[in-house]
Amino acid sequence: MGILVVGSVALDSVITPFGAKDEILGGSAIYSCIAASYFTDVSMVAVVGDDFPENHTDFLRAKGIDTEGLQRIPGKTFRWKGKYGDDLNSRTTLDTQLNVFADFDPKLSSVHRQCPYLFLGNIDPDLQYSVLQQMQQPKFVVCDTMNIWIENNRDSLLKVLSKIDLLVINDEEAGMLAGTSNVLKAAKEIMAMGPERLVIKRGEYGAILFGPRTVFSVPAFPVEDVFDPTGAGDSFAGGLMGYIANVASEDEITLRKAVVYGSVMASFNVADFGAERLGALTFTEIEGRYREFCKVVLFEDFNKNDGMKFDRIP
Amino acid sequence: MGILVVGSVALDSVITPFGAKDEILGGSAIYSCIAASYFTDVSMVAVVGDDFPENHTDFLRAKGIDTEGLQRIPGKTFRWKGKYGDDLNSRTTLDTQLNVFADFDPKLSSVHRQCPYLFLGNIDPDLQYSVLQQMQQPKFVVCDTMNIWIENNRDSLLKVLSKIDLLVINDEEAGMLAGTSNVLKAAKEIMAMGPERLVIKRGEYGAILFGPRTVFSVPAFPVEDVFDPTGAGDSFAGGLMGYIANVASEDEITLRKAVVYGSVMASFNVADFGAERLGALTFTEIEGRYREFCKVVLFEDFNKNDGMKFDRIP
Repeated sequence: MGILVVGSVALDSVITPFGAKDEILGGSAIYSCIAASYFTDVSMVAVVGDDFPENHTDFLRAKGIDTEGLQRIPGKTFRWKGKYGDDLNSRTTLDTQLNVFADFDPKLSSVHRQCPYLFLGNIDPDLQYSVLQQMQQPKFVVCDTMNIWIENNRDSLLKVLSKIDLLVINDEEAGMLAGTSNVLKAAKEIMAMGPERLVIKRGEYGAILFGPRTVFSVPAFPVEDVFDPTGAGDSFAGGLMGYIANVASEDEITLRKAVVYGSVMASFNVADFGAERLGALTFTEIEGRYREFCKVVLFEDFNKNDGMKFDRIP
Repeated sequence: MGILVVGSVALDSVITPFGAKDEILGGSAIYSCIAASYFTDVSMVAVVGDDFPENHTDFLRAKGIDTEGLQRIPGKTFRWKGKYGDDLNSRTTLDTQLNVFADFDPKLSSVHRQCPYLFLGNIDPDLQYSVLQQMQQPKFVVCDTMNIWIENNRDSLLKVLSKIDLLVINDEEAGMLAGTSNVLKAAKEIMAMGPERLVIKRGEYGAILFGPRTVFSVPAFPVEDVFDPTGAGDSFAGGLMGYIANVASEDEITLRKAVVYGSVMASFNVADFGAERLGALTFTEIEGRYREFCKVVLFEDFNKNDGMKFDRIP
């Protein structure tokens, strides 16, 4: 029951208040594949240039990730450079060099076309649609997108949205896509565009999962040391998708727990530069934090009478 | 097991994107007393001028609130006028007339001094301290404050903080008081100032309860129609305090549920201007929303094996 992940692979240069790193492994496919790899089999479809360090590919394979679909072509790998503000909530892109990623045109192998779970990372919706058309009846499709596609390629994005099961976006993007800042109203508008389900990510505040008749809201796992938020959203999506594929179910309780596992993976990812912490986890650590998460949000023992007096009921 | 609430009573004029209301019943003591009144006996200590409409006092009494401590003195009642931005997250104060509130000097009756639960609404910390000194060993003291006291009367505020059990403030105020924007770091700094427990309110994102060794994080109850956020924080504090006094316990699980009841009361309060909705509730509606709240945040049945496969544990 494997996951196919289509997205970007990049060499990121990141400046945070705590230091800077040059040309570290990054990109949406990297974070989501690594996060998902703890839960199930993952295949990556992406493109890199001939300057892509071999040790990165070795690292991905060591995580059990299938890199058969990671094309290596002449030219330079996608590069991104960004700087975070003091509170890590604001980010400025200093440089973007698409390089070989500019001509990315994912062609799936016959094996990859049969994957039951598909995660469409944040790439041009025309490419996402092309991937969808190559797939043979995937069981569950999750999709991410971002502001530039909402603004500049909305029609293609709407075509994609009509074919997927779950959209994962942040609150700013949801507001942009729906044209309203109220999160409940935005969710209704977006689900009317196609996806039966929607996750709105709210960064350090948590995430909300919407279904046809359900709302599930969960805070973020509180972390004291946030070093580098890059890839938090993709780690979230990878953890979410990984849990769904592991349990091989898409019912309400599974999706809710998947959102929590996504939050767990994101909370680990921000603890170090790039995917350093995310890539060095054990499943025992992940399960441990999931249990901690339960303790952080627990308030009700449904079977216990707490002694509340109801004599003031009007 | 009643609550004594000391705070402000005002005539508020509010402009929101949905309309405007002139001179409606407001002030921190009003919202917190009404919210708490659904749970337990409440006594209000505040001051109004001789222009304060008698029907407001009648309304408070009809809610079962003891208004013996509501002084009526010659002069005009405290007036506040404010305008909310389009997304309701920004607020501009257009006018503040302290009037009789400028000379507020709460003197407690011998009955009020014996109240086991005390809520110090957002007033000058020197007045809060004076109230604390008049009390006879209250069982649990909750306190609110705001930016102007943190900036202009910090020493008095620190004296108050050394004497209370729980401080309730919003995230901006927490950052200002502690000098850090990380919510966990801020919480540690603030608890080192005295209060054993702290609630940081995050508006539409929820609230976090901190204890000596515990963290409880809860999202806000998602509401589609937000009309007027005025008094949401005071309604939260009133619901929280009301539940604690009702159950007559201050253990961890009680405080967690109290935070959820506080969130429930705030979610009702924002649905109409002033305290219109808050004042017209039934306990059945409050319990109903609490149960809805449980459904919105539930993700784990601790006794059920969900079929997760652990064979990938490294």
